[in-house]
Amino acid sequence: MNMPENDKQSLSMVTCTAPVNIAVIKYWGKRDEDLILPINSSLSVTLHQDQLKTTTTVACSRNFQQDRIWLNGKGEDISNPRLQSCLQEIRRFSRKRRNTGDSTSDVSGVSHKVHICSVNNFPTAAGLASSASGYACLVYTLSQLFGVENEQLSAVARQGSGSACRSLYGGFVQWKLGEQLDGKDSLAEQVESESYWPELRVLILVVSAEQKSVGSTSGMHTSVETSQLLKYRADVVVPSRMEEMIRVIRERDFPAFGELTMKDSNQFHAICLDTYPPIFYLNNMSHRIISLVHRYNQYYGETRVAYTFDAGPNAVIYTLQDHLPEFVQVVRHFFPLEVSGEEFVKGLPVCSADLSEELKRDINMEPTPKGIRYIISTKAGPGPCVMKDPNHHLLGADGLPKKSVISD
Amino acid sequence: MNMPENDKQSLSMVTCTAPVNIAVIKYWGKRDEDLILPINSSLSVTLHQDQLKTTTTVACSRNFQQDRIWLNGKGEDISNPRLQSCLQEIRRFSRKRRNTGDSTSDVSGVSHKVHICSVNNFPTAAGLASSASGYACLVYTLSQLFGVENEQLSAVARQGSGSACRSLYGGFVQWKLGEQLDGKDSLAEQVESESYWPELRVLILVVSAEQKSVGSTSGMHTSVETSQLLKYRADVVVPSRMEEMIRVIRERDFPAFGELTMKDSNQFHAICLDTYPPIFYLNNMSHRIISLVHRYNQYYGETRVAYTFDAGPNAVIYTLQDHLPEFVQVVRHFFPLEVSGEEFVKGLPVCSADLSEELKRDINMEPTPKGIRYIISTKAGPGPCVMKDPNHHLLGADGLPKKSVISD
Repeated sequence: MNMPENDKQSLSMVTCTAPVNIAVIKYWGKRDEDLILPINSSLSVTLHQDQLKTTTTVACSRNFQQDRIWLNGKGEDISNPRLQSCLQEIRRFSRKRRNTGDSTSDVSGVSHKVHICSVNNFPTAAGLASSASGYACLVYTLSQLFGVENEQLSAVARQGSGSACRSLYGGFVQWKLGEQLDGKDSLAEQVESESYWPELRVLILVVSAEQKSVGSTSGMHTSVETSQLLKYRADVVVPSRMEEMIRVIRERDFPAFGELTMKDSNQFHAICLDTYPPIFYLNNMSHRIISLVHRYNQYYGETRVAYTFDAGPNAVIYTLQDHLPEFVQVVRHFFPLEVSGEEFVKGLPVCSADLSEELKRDINMEPTPKGIRYIISTKAGPGPCVMKDPNHHLLGADGLPKKSVISD
Repeated sequence: MNMPENDKQSLSMVTCTAPVNIAVIKYWGKRDEDLILPINSSLSVTLHQDQLKTTTTVACSRNFQQDRIWLNGKGEDISNPRLQSCLQEIRRFSRKRRNTGDSTSDVSGVSHKVHICSVNNFPTAAGLASSASGYACLVYTLSQLFGVENEQLSAVARQGSGSACRSLYGGFVQWKLGEQLDGKDSLAEQVESESYWPELRVLILVVSAEQKSVGSTSGMHTSVETSQLLKYRADVVVPSRMEEMIRVIRERDFPAFGELTMKDSNQFHAICLDTYPPIFYLNNMSHRIISLVHRYNQYYGETRVAYTFDAGPNAVIYTLQDHLPEFVQVVRHFFPLEVSGEEFVKGLPVCSADLSEELKRDINMEPTPKGIRYIISTKAGPGPCVMKDPNHHLLGADGLPKKSVISD
């Protein structure tokens, strides 16, 4: 893949895809804002690209006048400092490799300008941060084009968006905070692959948000500046939680995995509240989902379902395959569909299930119509992939986005 | 007052009132559940009894067969362990005093059974914990009847409800956590009287609550058991905040007082979120009030208004007299009245004020109709009072609640 078919011609082009990841030990707070070095390690599950992915095509040509980028069909400003960091770093690694003669591929394109075109297969309304999959995909695609080794990518992607480094691997991925001042050891690494725990399933409950939230970059900056509890979380709480999380994943111990996931999500949102002025990402609907999950688990006397929330009101649910159909039915019951006939569950199919009257009675909540817009059903998946079929390119032979990519 | 007029007859009776208090450094977590010893000191403002108070009559008679209690017009179970603690402690102190000959009054009633009748002048719907004013009033009234010294009362009231000890004093009151195992030094004391900072004003914004919250006793128990952040708050954060709070009150420094009050309210709710399962006391309406306060302060570039929230969604606002009319008008504008014509502001009158278009534009929030039900306007006030006029007695000459007291 380091030598695309059209490499010998004026235009070189590579297309790759990269996944979304959802943290179960949360990243919140930087110790270095420029290098994007975190104050604590974090751990995430990479979601399957069949449901959620970013696709990016990068082309380079000696005929291009300047670096350009199109995101979801719209031309954007390439001068964004984080985008520039990633481009510069990849070019630097590529030149270094060429100069030391390490590269087996033709990497002459590194001196050319690039055209970048990137699309997500999930709507922004899904409230999933696209920066992780976006930067992971950009950096991975550039590395394919310019011949940069994989182990160097996570430090580059991290400088685009911290959590992007975790999207470079499939399955269960930790981002070790590292110790060095230059961040060279602040890297992602795979804990276990996506095939390690095949029974694990993921649901994204997309709720009806009313208000726009504080962005995570400015939010975590304010937290570091003002939350007295954050330092204690980063220094004392997270290190032992990281160890425990890796252990319970390796043991495939769902109750322990679920409980720790919920506790860490709650502590992250507690830190947001301890920030001044406080940051609220959870709304009344998020509170109801949390309450529903605890009541459901209480009914069975064990943790069968776990929630986690990022910088927004949408819930991500982890559960095991066996418990999935019933829990989806519970969600349907307590959050009846806004408009009947619409597709409620997108993605991986979920079997239907009956709910016992006893379960409904024990959960003892008023149903909330229109509370959840839809569910995306998915599971753990692999890291970035190269698309070999040129039909997948988002850019045409002229180096501009294909018509089908351009948004109105 | 240690010798009511009817002392020589078969029936002795005393009626007292006691205030509500609102903490600005929050009490959350006990180190001893029986003695009600806290894990951190706390500090509150005692509210004026013209707006919010509990009134309690206690009668004793050799003719009473058993201890009895009526709360807000309904007979209740006297065997409640906390009620029993208070009764036993007061009787113990009274006997001790009689035996050492300290008492100048006739305290023979201590061997008789008591009838207790207590009412609040504020609706339960106001969401104000009535246990603080209730236990403070009970203990104070019993002490008047049985001749127990004031400095011993705070340890007794504390055993009814922790925060009740702070309602035994007016103005600004701290509850020092103490060090002794028996709790003898876990006492309330006045920091400054209610006349020290006369410009300080208080508003209670009663919001429309949908759900019932977790009670504070079980909530703080679960927090102590499960929140990793709570210990750090209690051991490290609160001691320095107590010092700072006392200093800024003595300096009448509203911006510093307001900011610290808001930060401590937020941290308390952060601890609730870090509890497992998490506890939510703030709802979307609380979030909007918080947002409104920060935007209002931001407009002026200084902290003119501060919020604090206890174990429920209602906001308590602290501000200075000069800024009160405009802020109330801001609240009216962004939370338009549910039914026009209803009284929106109860309690101390608030002058009307005009809002500039610039202020409304800068706050930049969508108005939320029906968000706030009404406002109680009040200020700092004195501690418990003895009602000398026998017309105020809630019990009749027969030792039973007067007809006017009994609820349907």
